[in-house]
Amino acid sequence: MGSVDEHVLHMGTLNPNVIELQYAVRGPIVARATELENELKNGVKKPFTKVVKANIGDCHATGQKPITFIRQVVALCTYPELMNSDLFPKDAKEKARKILNGCRGSSLGSYSDSPGVMVIREHVAQYITERDGYPADPADIVLCTGASDGIRSIMTLLLTGKLGKDKAGIMIPIPQYPLYSAALAEYAAYPIPYYLNEAKGWSMEVSELERAITEAKPHCCPRAIVIINPGNPTGQVLKKENIQDIIKFAKREKLFIMADEVYQHNIYAEGCKFFSFKQVMSEMGSPYDKMELASFMSASKGFMGECGYRGGYSEIVNLLPEITAQYMKSISAKLCPPVSGQVVVDCIVDPPKPGDPSYELFIAEKNEVLRQLKEKASLVTELFNSIDGISCNTLQGAMYAFPRIHLPPKAIKAAEDANQTPDSFYCFALLEETGICTVPGSGFREEPGTYHFRITILPQLEELKAVLGNFKDFHLNFLAKYK
Amino acid sequence: MGSVDEHVLHMGTLNPNVIELQYAVRGPIVARATELENELKNGVKKPFTKVVKANIGDCHATGQKPITFIRQVVALCTYPELMNSDLFPKDAKEKARKILNGCRGSSLGSYSDSPGVMVIREHVAQYITERDGYPADPADIVLCTGASDGIRSIMTLLLTGKLGKDKAGIMIPIPQYPLYSAALAEYAAYPIPYYLNEAKGWSMEVSELERAITEAKPHCCPRAIVIINPGNPTGQVLKKENIQDIIKFAKREKLFIMADEVYQHNIYAEGCKFFSFKQVMSEMGSPYDKMELASFMSASKGFMGECGYRGGYSEIVNLLPEITAQYMKSISAKLCPPVSGQVVVDCIVDPPKPGDPSYELFIAEKNEVLRQLKEKASLVTELFNSIDGISCNTLQGAMYAFPRIHLPPKAIKAAEDANQTPDSFYCFALLEETGICTVPGSGFREEPGTYHFRITILPQLEELKAVLGNFKDFHLNFLAKYK
Repeated sequence: MGSVDEHVLHMGTLNPNVIELQYAVRGPIVARATELENELKNGVKKPFTKVVKANIGDCHATGQKPITFIRQVVALCTYPELMNSDLFPKDAKEKARKILNGCRGSSLGSYSDSPGVMVIREHVAQYITERDGYPADPADIVLCTGASDGIRSIMTLLLTGKLGKDKAGIMIPIPQYPLYSAALAEYAAYPIPYYLNEAKGWSMEVSELERAITEAKPHCCPRAIVIINPGNPTGQVLKKENIQDIIKFAKREKLFIMADEVYQHNIYAEGCKFFSFKQVMSEMGSPYDKMELASFMSASKGFMGECGYRGGYSEIVNLLPEITAQYMKSISAKLCPPVSGQVVVDCIVDPPKPGDPSYELFIAEKNEVLRQLKEKASLVTELFNSIDGISCNTLQGAMYAFPRIHLPPKAIKAAEDANQTPDSFYCFALLEETGICTVPGSGFREEPGTYHFRITILPQLEELKAVLGNFKDFHLNFLAKYK
Repeated sequence: MGSVDEHVLHMGTLNPNVIELQYAVRGPIVARATELENELKNGVKKPFTKVVKANIGDCHATGQKPITFIRQVVALCTYPELMNSDLFPKDAKEKARKILNGCRGSSLGSYSDSPGVMVIREHVAQYITERDGYPADPADIVLCTGASDGIRSIMTLLLTGKLGKDKAGIMIPIPQYPLYSAALAEYAAYPIPYYLNEAKGWSMEVSELERAITEAKPHCCPRAIVIINPGNPTGQVLKKENIQDIIKFAKREKLFIMADEVYQHNIYAEGCKFFSFKQVMSEMGSPYDKMELASFMSASKGFMGECGYRGGYSEIVNLLPEITAQYMKSISAKLCPPVSGQVVVDCIVDPPKPGDPSYELFIAEKNEVLRQLKEKASLVTELFNSIDGISCNTLQGAMYAFPRIHLPPKAIKAAEDANQTPDSFYCFALLEETGICTVPGSGFREEPGTYHFRITILPQLEELKAVLGNFKDFHLNFLAKYK
């Protein structure tokens, strides 16, 4: 390999922003989980027979089955010879034909326009219009390579190209989904953390937003606020009044709103309802209905969980025409999002209607996935709250629980001795003893002195029950050990 | 929309790097072509009946048919119920099964590891090993969302995170594929342009590389050299000796080599052969065989032209283990490349073998695409060189001609009056009068005082002949007009 000195790239020359970047959902604990899987395969004896990867919102990986209609349409678009086969219902064929008509050369293999296939953008706009009761314009819909790509593209617009206190500041919730901190590190932007209030069900409080921005102003140029609703990893669903307050705050502070709404289908708790930022802004009227907003949606979550297709879209609202033009130019060098992922998005926003041949099966599959998630959400909340030393807010939406663990001082000391954060120490022990792979709360950041972990509710019901049983045993042993 | 002042984002606050960024392949001339298409649809009379988009290497858009085997495998992976259908040959089913075994939950809908599905990375490594006669390691293969994504990820590692003369300098050929200048603008890196020698068949000369880097050194910190081989837009295929000289130069100057080898299947001219940088470096032995290199490949070009799937890979060679680890971390926040695009890559690097049920059809389809491209490459070269005021180097490889146009002073004056570069002026006139959409040479940058345009050779043979006929008439009229 030669010595370090002969290399162009070594730790002294590597982009320091890359070194800074962390993405805990795929961090060291996940690497260890993969090692353990291999050890099990090779016959090494462990206190468990299977590693349960509850670290990532990867629905199909944990046994959820694809929605039949989605896969039928994608297969038809992929291999149009199947149009002649009687294996596929008429409405799936019709949809596939309509999409292929919108693709150059009637092929998924052609580049689409950079913001996506027009007929799909039209369907997205129609979906939003029906969801919110306010019109959406297909020209404002930009398909992307998963929501992450859309988020990164919008963030790019907001950068200042400067360093030091002229850096762009972006407000992010703590706990947050680490895509945000990772992208901000890569772009050398300034994260402005605001804390969600765990004691009040992870609510967002305007006084905290004000504290956060006031402290940040000497260090950066605040440009935007990120809101994740329903929350990841925290699972709260924002009330309309709360959204109104946030919008007013953003208006006062002249912030661009980035609304991460990828879990909009995942609402479980009684009395909770999803309100989009676009809808609330529109309802509030002048001057709020003219504020700049980007909202993000994904094919990877909801009831479909088609993560591998990398489908998603963003809706941009109230951008100046010249800024929209610049945005379109900036994404053009990436050519286009994967067209098969665009097809998945189309099936989500324009599903079979009552009376269509695929309707009954589609709705049954969709409802069953959401019903199970709802059952698991309440199961998990109850279980965690029944265990000594654990507390967990009601999982109102999304796909994760983020319980707080109250660790005894001896455990914290042991973690320090092992040169780990207390929650990493805890999660590693959990993995080694039970095979359950979670993500330490520090990967999402958390209020100093508090410890959490994120666990998905995606494992199939029976497996999840077993997992929670093992977890309980582990936790009580852990407490006993460090009492 | 409100006034500019009320907006967070206006041209005064937008990221200046975004304003700087240009991507000519999808620039204003293409926007005008789309307008013309709509005008034709609405019955507006034009001197032509069809817009021919020869601006972009988009194979299926211009009538090339997908390779059957590729689409069969992707369809089977998408909708595994098709495994029971007799519409699919046995080897396509076997390949699909093998890939699905490598996907979590046996679904294309799961996230793969960030560098891709392991079985596909293994196939890529095997393909490179057989191509070069030197071993490739699956651990060094990173699948990506089209080659552009791989290129951007590697470039990110090379940045310095600093501004002014501490910026990373990246050497790029002129003319170049505008992805490079666009990414460098977005990342605020310093492009170090080196000119290809048009008089010598667009060859790369070490003296020019030396001139370029010497001039750049006071302004940046040179880190890497980009080579596009076969050339885009210039179509040259580098000789082995030329590659050796470039490698020696990179060694002397301590540069990371970025080898854009996406057209490795597209070699047409007699006596030309593709040599990968990896192979030549390996053959040269110490110390060259320890140099850092990233090579990029795409599913979008070659004989398959599956642009819409956004499949590609990079091979990283001789990176320090800690740098590889940082690279893997840096791509983890993007989660994974589209899995169906990864499947397309798999079919390209591990195609049917002689004796397999799909072999005959696969090889016939592949050879026919490449035969037609070869015929069109020589047709285009001959035609351009037969026209007064045009000269064109032999199109040895890739998918484009980049003819030089010798414009009369009156035309240059008219362009100035219209506030356009002379080649933009020419290409706009060509579009308005014939419907042929090309890209002005200035979009790829060119030696000052020279004018070119890029035209793809992708339209089907009969259409291309008609296009070239119309082009000739246009050109002679243009010369007469500005004589």
